Amino acid sequence: MENFVFHNETKLIFGKGTIEKIGEEIKVAGLKKVLMLCGSGSIKKNGVYDLATESLKKGQISWVEVWGIKPNPVLSKVHEAVEIARKEKVEAILGIGGGSVIDSAKAVAAGVVYAGDIWDAFVGKYKVEKALPVFAILTISATGTEMNGNAVITNEKTQEKLAVSSKALYPKVSIIDPSVQASLPKEQTVYGAVDAIAHILEYYFDGSDALAQDELSEALIRTIMVCTEKLLNDPNDYEARANFAWSATLALNGLTAAGRRGGDWACHRIEHSLSAIYDIAHGAGLAIVFPAWMKHVWRQKPQQFIRFAKKVFSITSDGETAALDGIEAFKSWLRRMGAPVSLRDVNIPSSDLDKIVENVFRSGRTLGQLKKLDRSDVKKILELAF
Amino acid sequence: MENFVFHNETKLIFGKGTIEKIGEEIKVAGLKKVLMLCGSGSIKKNGVYDLATESLKKGQISWVEVWGIKPNPVLSKVHEAVEIARKEKVEAILGIGGGSVIDSAKAVAAGVVYAGDIWDAFVGKYKVEKALPVFAILTISATGTEMNGNAVITNEKTQEKLAVSSKALYPKVSIIDPSVQASLPKEQTVYGAVDAIAHILEYYFDGSDALAQDELSEALIRTIMVCTEKLLNDPNDYEARANFAWSATLALNGLTAAGRRGGDWACHRIEHSLSAIYDIAHGAGLAIVFPAWMKHVWRQKPQQFIRFAKKVFSITSDGETAALDGIEAFKSWLRRMGAPVSLRDVNIPSSDLDKIVENVFRSGRTLGQLKKLDRSDVKKILELAF
Repeated sequence: MENFVFHNETKLIFGKGTIEKIGEEIKVAGLKKVLMLCGSGSIKKNGVYDLATESLKKGQISWVEVWGIKPNPVLSKVHEAVEIARKEKVEAILGIGGGSVIDSAKAVAAGVVYAGDIWDAFVGKYKVEKALPVFAILTISATGTEMNGNAVITNEKTQEKLAVSSKALYPKVSIIDPSVQASLPKEQTVYGAVDAIAHILEYYFDGSDALAQDELSEALIRTIMVCTEKLLNDPNDYEARANFAWSATLALNGLTAAGRRGGDWACHRIEHSLSAIYDIAHGAGLAIVFPAWMKHVWRQKPQQFIRFAKKVFSITSDGETAALDGIEAFKSWLRRMGAPVSLRDVNIPSSDLDKIVENVFRSGRTLGQLKKLDRSDVKKILELAF
Repeated sequence: MENFVFHNETKLIFGKGTIEKIGEEIKVAGLKKVLMLCGSGSIKKNGVYDLATESLKKGQISWVEVWGIKPNPVLSKVHEAVEIARKEKVEAILGIGGGSVIDSAKAVAAGVVYAGDIWDAFVGKYKVEKALPVFAILTISATGTEMNGNAVITNEKTQEKLAVSSKALYPKVSIIDPSVQASLPKEQTVYGAVDAIAHILEYYFDGSDALAQDELSEALIRTIMVCTEKLLNDPNDYEARANFAWSATLALNGLTAAGRRGGDWACHRIEHSLSAIYDIAHGAGLAIVFPAWMKHVWRQKPQQFIRFAKKVFSITSDGETAALDGIEAFKSWLRRMGAPVSLRDVNIPSSDLDKIVENVFRSGRTLGQLKKLDRSDVKKILELAF
């Protein structure tokens, strides 16, 4: 096990009927005016907007609304919200929505207190050490952003999808009422599951050894899988929704990362290029990339892939066969849940592979932890994914 | 799953060579003088004291030392330390040791800022809402106190062992260097394992349903069991020590409690009476009480006991048989690790059972969550434990 620091100060309020606590939480933090960031309007249909605004009124919190945050949230929208936040002199940012909205809320919170373009933070020219306080009401469990300091934004001009991470960006308070997710389209539940599982696997397969984390990671993956299957049968199954939601939060709140080597993150980097170029759902991209990456790198640490096969998919074969059977079982499960598992499934032509490889290496950083990947590795992974 | 709030602000610094960070951590918190609370002197033998004081000097932190905190820490010692802390005008309490020392540090931290006798907080006459900041260097992984707001103190005059819990008592920073635990006597490792497993089981068997927590709890128990076995073979096995330590922290930091019904805690209450009266090790008492309690209450929720049997002990039988086989397997494992599993093993005579029952109900609170226990239930559990 590697040395680590675990320090996660987000207050997570979880369960039925918890959205109405937002006003009180902002009030006791001594804040009076917030910028409310929202998506495309589904929160008006499922009642979340009314619950939240009612609660803000009760807490005597005033707010300004910015609507229209989209999946794969874009930089121009962040800029727009930063400007409004400054003009309106808000004291905090409240994101109500899925990962895209809350990631945008974090980018805005950091952007308001930075004189330059907040994109600087994403390309490594500026280190985020302060931000307005972020509050979150999560309506789609997937990215884990509700309990970490990460945000991923797409610069639509440069077609770069990049991440920033800072202690200052942990939400002060995040509220998760799993019952409001009952109205999600099936594919969003599936993509959320893929995203959460991928977060766990990025650490699980980073080359480190840590029995406790192996056990916890497998426990969370099994839980997410069981709950996803239940939710495809019955989207209103509250217990499945709740266990799914809590597991997705734990998938990227530091728990499975503690004692690891920082995660591998090659699959996320490759996927970020896919969704930056083709605007496909993040979870869809991960379902395509992850099994291909596994096939390409498993020989770096066969015992971990064999363990994965046995503990997650109860594979009974041994040695190399078990490792490969586990990867196939994972891919089959993704397919069975309705996720795309090849580039062809999302109509990306084989003639584009080189373009994708170039995008992946655009940010110039090294890629991969379990295996350092060069351009030819990524090309091979994309071919396996085709 | 029940609604919950997860909010744990302790900064946990974990790994080899981390003790020397204590001075810097206290310094950046803006503090200059601390009361250092210690046990019987083992930290002078294993180098922890030198590392810590060297680091305090570097951070220009001055300190006053109070030695002699014993297992089942007593109120009189807390009173003594409170007086010194006041006289010396310290700004924080630094506990260096196991659970007893850190629990005492919390009691002292709360006691310094309370005009009355801090025992009031343990008997429910005073609610702890403020305390001096607590810092901890953990040298025995067992109680989980390094990452929660709980403290258990024994009033030696009244023979009551009671707990207090407060948001104000979470350590600001806790440091765990698992390598310093290599010098622990074997039985302390075993009792630590029993304590940590018992914490997990208190929630696991509280009658609530939560798949994620079931999975996480089983993952932690299996990890602790495997690591305990390894450590009895080789106390210097760092990986086993580290995975054990991290699991013991997670066993009572809110992770396995989230979404549950607050835990059962009958076994802990009964054990507290045993160690208050006979001064036996907490882990030893739990090893005696837990299997007996399980035998008495398993029919309240057979499916959870069957699940436990299958997931933790790979029991292949079914139904009632599986539930009972699981309890037997747990008891056998405890015995194999060298823990006492009956009152006879620690020389408590059968003629004392009524006295123990009286002590258990002395604090007058209701007992148990899965099954509300009355005097006759506790008597039966003690008979099963005899």
